[in-house]
Amino acid sequence: MSYQIGIIGTGNVAWHLARAFENAGHVITDIYNRDIRKAKHFALDFFNAKATSKLNFNDSNAQIFILAVSDDSIAEIAPEILLPKNAILVHTSGSVAMAALGYARTENQGVFYPLQTFSKGKAVDFSEIPIGIEAENKMTENALNSLAKSISNKVQLMDSRDRRTIHLAAVFACNFTNHLFTISKGILENRNLNFDLLEPLIVETLNKSLEIGPNNAQTGPAKRGDFETLDNHFQALSNNPEIAEIYRAISQNIIDYYSEE
Amino acid sequence: MSYQIGIIGTGNVAWHLARAFENAGHVITDIYNRDIRKAKHFALDFFNAKATSKLNFNDSNAQIFILAVSDDSIAEIAPEILLPKNAILVHTSGSVAMAALGYARTENQGVFYPLQTFSKGKAVDFSEIPIGIEAENKMTENALNSLAKSISNKVQLMDSRDRRTIHLAAVFACNFTNHLFTISKGILENRNLNFDLLEPLIVETLNKSLEIGPNNAQTGPAKRGDFETLDNHFQALSNNPEIAEIYRAISQNIIDYYSEE
Repeated sequence: MSYQIGIIGTGNVAWHLARAFENAGHVITDIYNRDIRKAKHFALDFFNAKATSKLNFNDSNAQIFILAVSDDSIAEIAPEILLPKNAILVHTSGSVAMAALGYARTENQGVFYPLQTFSKGKAVDFSEIPIGIEAENKMTENALNSLAKSISNKVQLMDSRDRRTIHLAAVFACNFTNHLFTISKGILENRNLNFDLLEPLIVETLNKSLEIGPNNAQTGPAKRGDFETLDNHFQALSNNPEIAEIYRAISQNIIDYYSEE
Repeated sequence: MSYQIGIIGTGNVAWHLARAFENAGHVITDIYNRDIRKAKHFALDFFNAKATSKLNFNDSNAQIFILAVSDDSIAEIAPEILLPKNAILVHTSGSVAMAALGYARTENQGVFYPLQTFSKGKAVDFSEIPIGIEAENKMTENALNSLAKSISNKVQLMDSRDRRTIHLAAVFACNFTNHLFTISKGILENRNLNFDLLEPLIVETLNKSLEIGPNNAQTGPAKRGDFETLDNHFQALSNNPEIAEIYRAISQNIIDYYSEE
């Protein structure tokens, strides 16, 4: 089944989804940004897309509208959108409940959540990206499921609580790990050493972790119960109490996690 | 220059280094383990290697001996090794000072530290693995430098303090990030969600971080100053105070790091 799709928003999520939809044989009919120049620029990349700076889509042929805007704007913009009869409206956020669309002028509300981070100009293979679907009714769920499966092999139903859980898990696995890289980089650069030195070790550690599971891949002084090294490291961080505290808190949790086994 | 090399120890570091040396045209002459069966098993993989369970290498032709044993055993084993005249003895540890070899029966002491984690049976391309070199004298340094450059394009001098700094940085970038994956997995599995869901996001986050630098790649509620989400997450973790504390400590550091910019 080929859908006609309206895209509200012109950010990275909007662009990469639109690209994947068009590649899968769907048609992008409308592109909205309140700044018409941004909408027109975006529309250049899609065969049949009409740029607009108005949220009135009464005359559009689209059956599905993708509201891909910042989390804070979803509940604000949704009620302003004028939709064709029976059209589906979804947002794409992992951290916003479906209920944020509550005041939208359609009952066919849902969520279409790709579990990936997107960068401008960097191509993405959607086939392995999980897509979480939630819908207010069965007709909407079937349409979203069909649309999602046309671009990804990993589609599953996820309610708003599932998405909240995934978002929290992703904060640990992505946002926090990235900040630990920043801390690591700072420790090295204080001694004029380059963060690049650690790149092969970081990549191999990640590969091993994903291959055998992180709990089987854990190494290091806390796992070994090497209290002398833990103490030396903690002392070495004494000039930065916040980072020393992170060191202490994670090490303590590693010790407790593996001693409970 | 082709070296003849003795390997003391039969673990993963020993095996992968020996493999890389032989591939680069050096000759592995001796393999030591106090358990002769382990030494013989290891020696099967190398053309000219003689297995031994004795630390007397007086009759060996090797010029360089690699002491690749656990950190704790280095200072204990080193003085027991009988070496041919002028032979070089190095350890391979990132977290042990060169001085741990102090009582070895040669003045030609050093460190040959590959910045990678090795798994049994998993081939490794050494060319991109950084190798840190330290030596007690210039002759030793030159030989180690020449040996290291025969297997890696990323050889640099690193004193014991550099290695300690790198080890601490690696605890943050590797050990701790791996534990955050374990925490993330636990959060998902509590709600019957699979950790695999996050794999594409984790891989892409890492790629972006290494490409543009972690401080440029940071995202998430703490970076955005989204205190409502931070508070919700902290509440959601209230049944596990240690993990809540990790959440708080890292989030606080992200907030402070980016507000100081």
